[in-house]
Amino acid sequence: MKSDLCAQLGIEFPLFAFSHCRDVVAAVSRAGGMGVFGAVMYTPEQLRTELEWIDANCGGKPYGVDLIVPTSIQRQDNAPSGTDLIGALPESHTDFVTETLAAHGVPAEGLDENRADFLNFSRNLDAAGAEAMLDVAFSFPIRLIANALGTPPAVMLERGRRAGVPVAALVGSRKHAERQVAAGVDILVAAGGEAGGHCGEISTMVLVPEVVSVAGDTPVLAAGGIVTGAQMAAAMAMGAAGAWCGSVWLTTAEAEPSEVIKQKLIAAGSGDTVRSRSRTGKTSRQLRSAWTDAWEGKGPDPLPMPFQTLVSEPALSRIEKLAAGGHEGARDLSTYWVGQGVGLMNRMSSAGAVVQEFKQDYLAAVERLNATLEE
Amino acid sequence: MKSDLCAQLGIEFPLFAFSHCRDVVAAVSRAGGMGVFGAVMYTPEQLRTELEWIDANCGGKPYGVDLIVPTSIQRQDNAPSGTDLIGALPESHTDFVTETLAAHGVPAEGLDENRADFLNFSRNLDAAGAEAMLDVAFSFPIRLIANALGTPPAVMLERGRRAGVPVAALVGSRKHAERQVAAGVDILVAAGGEAGGHCGEISTMVLVPEVVSVAGDTPVLAAGGIVTGAQMAAAMAMGAAGAWCGSVWLTTAEAEPSEVIKQKLIAAGSGDTVRSRSRTGKTSRQLRSAWTDAWEGKGPDPLPMPFQTLVSEPALSRIEKLAAGGHEGARDLSTYWVGQGVGLMNRMSSAGAVVQEFKQDYLAAVERLNATLEE
Repeated sequence: MKSDLCAQLGIEFPLFAFSHCRDVVAAVSRAGGMGVFGAVMYTPEQLRTELEWIDANCGGKPYGVDLIVPTSIQRQDNAPSGTDLIGALPESHTDFVTETLAAHGVPAEGLDENRADFLNFSRNLDAAGAEAMLDVAFSFPIRLIANALGTPPAVMLERGRRAGVPVAALVGSRKHAERQVAAGVDILVAAGGEAGGHCGEISTMVLVPEVVSVAGDTPVLAAGGIVTGAQMAAAMAMGAAGAWCGSVWLTTAEAEPSEVIKQKLIAAGSGDTVRSRSRTGKTSRQLRSAWTDAWEGKGPDPLPMPFQTLVSEPALSRIEKLAAGGHEGARDLSTYWVGQGVGLMNRMSSAGAVVQEFKQDYLAAVERLNATLEE
Repeated sequence: MKSDLCAQLGIEFPLFAFSHCRDVVAAVSRAGGMGVFGAVMYTPEQLRTELEWIDANCGGKPYGVDLIVPTSIQRQDNAPSGTDLIGALPESHTDFVTETLAAHGVPAEGLDENRADFLNFSRNLDAAGAEAMLDVAFSFPIRLIANALGTPPAVMLERGRRAGVPVAALVGSRKHAERQVAAGVDILVAAGGEAGGHCGEISTMVLVPEVVSVAGDTPVLAAGGIVTGAQMAAAMAMGAAGAWCGSVWLTTAEAEPSEVIKQKLIAAGSGDTVRSRSRTGKTSRQLRSAWTDAWEGKGPDPLPMPFQTLVSEPALSRIEKLAAGGHEGARDLSTYWVGQGVGLMNRMSSAGAVVQEFKQDYLAAVERLNATLEE
């Protein structure tokens, strides 16, 4: 495709694959898009291992990394320890988890002991943790680094500039976009309210032209609900420079979700997702399940980030393991971050095949529009 | 534009203007789109007067009518009288209205006496009322008749077929669309959750391809958030046959809202709308105001349709009159149905100029996509 962004990043087709799965990242980059590795749940050592694998398996094509680096990274001198964080969890929340698991026949014993396994997320949010992740990321020949939540701190933008690596950031409103452009972000990812994971309330159809209108020369990628090349063409008709997709990779052979989750995603309709604060403390869209129903129905008010993660993830990890083993109650509880586009994800595929389908579908969409202009 | 739908309806450009204002309907039809008159709050006599005016002022171009004709029209033999409906309103609701008005310095005296003025809506929902409206509509050379809520009853589809008038219906989910296609609807209007007025939860970006995938040969119009020709091109890239817009006309010189509302709409961002059941009893998207905040914050659970209209409309009518006269409290309370696209509506225009801008913007969007294919 002829585009300034493709030329800048050295890619063929401006389809960005946000994925927690290294296989998806490498496959999409090899197929002409750009894989972006979502690293926020990893340690720096794990990130190094994953990026080594990606670098060896992406066929020399460009790839990127996605982190959550807090805007206030410079100010967090006395970050609380993991023990502090775990000790601060109120019993109202841990008890609710125990009851919810029990109601579906899932044992809750030992969850407290497992909580420390889920501290990477909070470690990566403090100054030392975030810098260690940036150190690892910039030790690889990455071609993009993205910040998933909020304005990237000056240190991240400076490191990007020094390394010649564009810094992208997700935005959910026009105001976010104005702030990010002023901060010097290189690429905006406009994420509509239908997106999986953290999201706002403004739909992709409205948000993309709103963000484009204030972005000036900064390229805008469209995110939220996009799982086909026709939708990508739609976003680009509104001025986007490409599409940033997360959900569509989840039902590929390479992707990290269990077979149970993949089958639930294929069966799900577009109305089977819910925006909830019950997973991370901030609003994120996920597959509706007995777990999300319990929190939305009668759960305590979720804790702020990063505390809620320490409440939810140990339980969800146990649920996932039991569900994979055939436990019915765990299957009902199991959930995953996914956007409304899940309603259009109706069969298993491979990451490379998804990229090829996007390209064909994009071309067909442009031809469809051209046909309306013929005399 | 070259399109089967344009040929079928005898229009130049498949932009449909849903409006309660006859001037907008006639202006859009004259400009090459199709005006569709939203008649649900009118009596049959008023509808006749309005359609006579439209017919005389649309320059011989096609126009349509939009009603709410309940699916169960055949079964409602003993519809309650207006007095029954008004007598059934619980004091919890009328008292809440009185308190909310008082908190903003708006007098509530005499609202009970005015309630009967707002019975048209409920009359039009019963069998005799709906048939009387259909009689008037079909006595004019309309080229489209639409049902705003639910599957049109067989009698409506039969009358459309006899008169050679396509019957359109709004859908908010894939399941709705399947039901409507099975019932024999001629045109589907896929209305995303970002739409003003009654709406579901699935965004336009996801809903349009979902509905297109089950529509077969039935043309699909895209609604929800669309206020520019680039967004219309986006929807058509995903397979829509055109765009159905309501909000964008509200900030035209011709439109019915008061100057106070028009200025509030121009100032509003895309995040300044709310989905609420407080106006009609069904979920509809409207401009956030002190009125919607009161209902969402501490209001009683809204009554089912058509009762809630008899609670809300007498108060909103008074609010509108006082706001137009400069009353500050009424200004804060005043609201209007509008979609998230309001964030892109930043200046006053005229209905004819909006159509011309859509055409130019549509062409520019197609050119933008074609530029990505050049070698």
